[in-house]
Amino acid sequence: MKKYVRKAVLDLKAYEVNDAGYSIKLDANEGIDWYDGLNRYPDNQAVKLVKALSDVTEKKESELIVGNGSSELIELILKTFLEPQEYVVSIDPTFSMYKIFTTIYNGKYEGYKLVDNQYCDIEDFIEFISKMKAKIVILSNPNNPTGSFIEKESIEKILKGSDAIVVIDEAYIEFSSGSVIDLINEYENLIVLRTFSKAYAVAGIRLGYLAANESIVKYIKRVKSPYNLNAISQEIGLKALDSIDVVNKNIELIKEEREKVWKSLYKLGLNPIPSYANFILFQGDDKLNDYLKSFGILVREFGGDLKGYIRVTIGTREENDKVIEKIGRYYNEKCPN
Amino acid sequence: MKKYVRKAVLDLKAYEVNDAGYSIKLDANEGIDWYDGLNRYPDNQAVKLVKALSDVTEKKESELIVGNGSSELIELILKTFLEPQEYVVSIDPTFSMYKIFTTIYNGKYEGYKLVDNQYCDIEDFIEFISKMKAKIVILSNPNNPTGSFIEKESIEKILKGSDAIVVIDEAYIEFSSGSVIDLINEYENLIVLRTFSKAYAVAGIRLGYLAANESIVKYIKRVKSPYNLNAISQEIGLKALDSIDVVNKNIELIKEEREKVWKSLYKLGLNPIPSYANFILFQGDDKLNDYLKSFGILVREFGGDLKGYIRVTIGTREENDKVIEKIGRYYNEKCPN
Repeated sequence: MKKYVRKAVLDLKAYEVNDAGYSIKLDANEGIDWYDGLNRYPDNQAVKLVKALSDVTEKKESELIVGNGSSELIELILKTFLEPQEYVVSIDPTFSMYKIFTTIYNGKYEGYKLVDNQYCDIEDFIEFISKMKAKIVILSNPNNPTGSFIEKESIEKILKGSDAIVVIDEAYIEFSSGSVIDLINEYENLIVLRTFSKAYAVAGIRLGYLAANESIVKYIKRVKSPYNLNAISQEIGLKALDSIDVVNKNIELIKEEREKVWKSLYKLGLNPIPSYANFILFQGDDKLNDYLKSFGILVREFGGDLKGYIRVTIGTREENDKVIEKIGRYYNEKCPN
Repeated sequence: MKKYVRKAVLDLKAYEVNDAGYSIKLDANEGIDWYDGLNRYPDNQAVKLVKALSDVTEKKESELIVGNGSSELIELILKTFLEPQEYVVSIDPTFSMYKIFTTIYNGKYEGYKLVDNQYCDIEDFIEFISKMKAKIVILSNPNNPTGSFIEKESIEKILKGSDAIVVIDEAYIEFSSGSVIDLINEYENLIVLRTFSKAYAVAGIRLGYLAANESIVKYIKRVKSPYNLNAISQEIGLKALDSIDVVNKNIELIKEEREKVWKSLYKLGLNPIPSYANFILFQGDDKLNDYLKSFGILVREFGGDLKGYIRVTIGTREENDKVIEKIGRYYNEKCPN
């Protein structure tokens, strides 16, 4: 593991937080309480939340880190492993923040073009990783914005076939299957990211977590800012884990609705990509977004190679019906039979 | 301004967030709501909170950025301005995270030794800044952990006398006077940091803000992660600003108590440093911390050059009386009359 870690981080000692029990706490320059005990800094290690996540994921507490959204966790990974000028590699198209973060952290970024925006030739991708001498491979899986998915066996091929830190961002995994989180102890270079912003549906609290073997986690904690996750997000995260039944019901609903929306888009000839996530990417055109917006419906359009493509989130049944109806009407008005 | 900005940042475009009004929102892969609308990502620009801060600080909204604690804001500054191997300079002793962050961001760090842990020879410090070719000067003012303060006139000398980005971390300014926030439009290289964790006493929500001229703010926003501040901290931040009367009352109480605690420590011969913050640094010894801990009282001890020093936060009247009594008892037991 050590060989992957940045020189500066090898020498770094994490900021120490006093977590002893107390009757009077005058060690952290906190103010006088006037709001439900929020004068105290949050638990730096989010012990309760990490314990609950440990139960849900069947990973050890020492294999987990929680963060201010997956964004913070991606940054922690770059801080731990990426020296200036080293390469981060992903697929293309994918989540645009991977490139932006890499740039911010002085790295170089290259995306491996998917065939038809969905298929990844794994053997060729592994060669690409090796050719780029990638320090970090990061894959959104299921992939945002395409909805496509790389099977577990293929991820294992990448893990075996490359000498990089491999980050699998499973933000949308609950809408699919085939997580690689059970492999973190088989591959010392594997990191899995998860979020509460999608299936758990609490994006407002900005909560993500990372699972990896203890040795990786130990190094990443060295670059984590103290008190990175506020107290209330820790609390609501616990409530979300307690409310797994509601969450699961909504996941099932979204999967059914995804099927329905996909078929509608397919019938309209819009080449929707089969989706393993809670959204669908399809070939609209560059006016459709404005048309939908005129009805107060927001979807996501793209530029560059994805110009004309639209990504629509699977919402409630009513929302999906409405958006499908409007898309249908748009194409009927445009090309009436 | 542009001359200070990192090359990579000059080319960077910030991640774009759709903030149009809507009746149906299917553009951000958010889940189905089950918890008070928290399925939505927080406002990326924290418009309401920034507006309220603008009123309080009399700065324009375009001169302010809110973040996940001052920690995030310090990181944003390093991301925007610090190229690898460039120097960050501060005073010594000071807040230890400045050095840790600099290391993480590939910079070099040097602290200018205060005389008697409290006095800064400004002319000499300016020479030091110039000798180190510092890219960034960061000053905790009032200074943590010493409680000492650099007057506004001296800060202006630094601003005029050095060609660095000058960051004044005013985490404790409400316990003092002499903020430089009114100077952000006079000096293009000035950045002021503030926090809700000390005088506002809501450390649990992790909320800080930054004030600087528009041109700096524009560049820093390019490296800000989308949705960096969760929705609930935005809400509670607004409540804290609305509760300014309670906050001000507590500030007055702390200032009175600070006087009382300082005098007690002085009488005990513990050389307390005159404090402009909500804590006092004094010369204890390396057993005092353990003695206090045995009564469930947490204070902060230090190593290195500050070995034997203790920093005690000013708490409620009862807490302060208790800690003073115990410190008194410790020294009486140790050296009875």
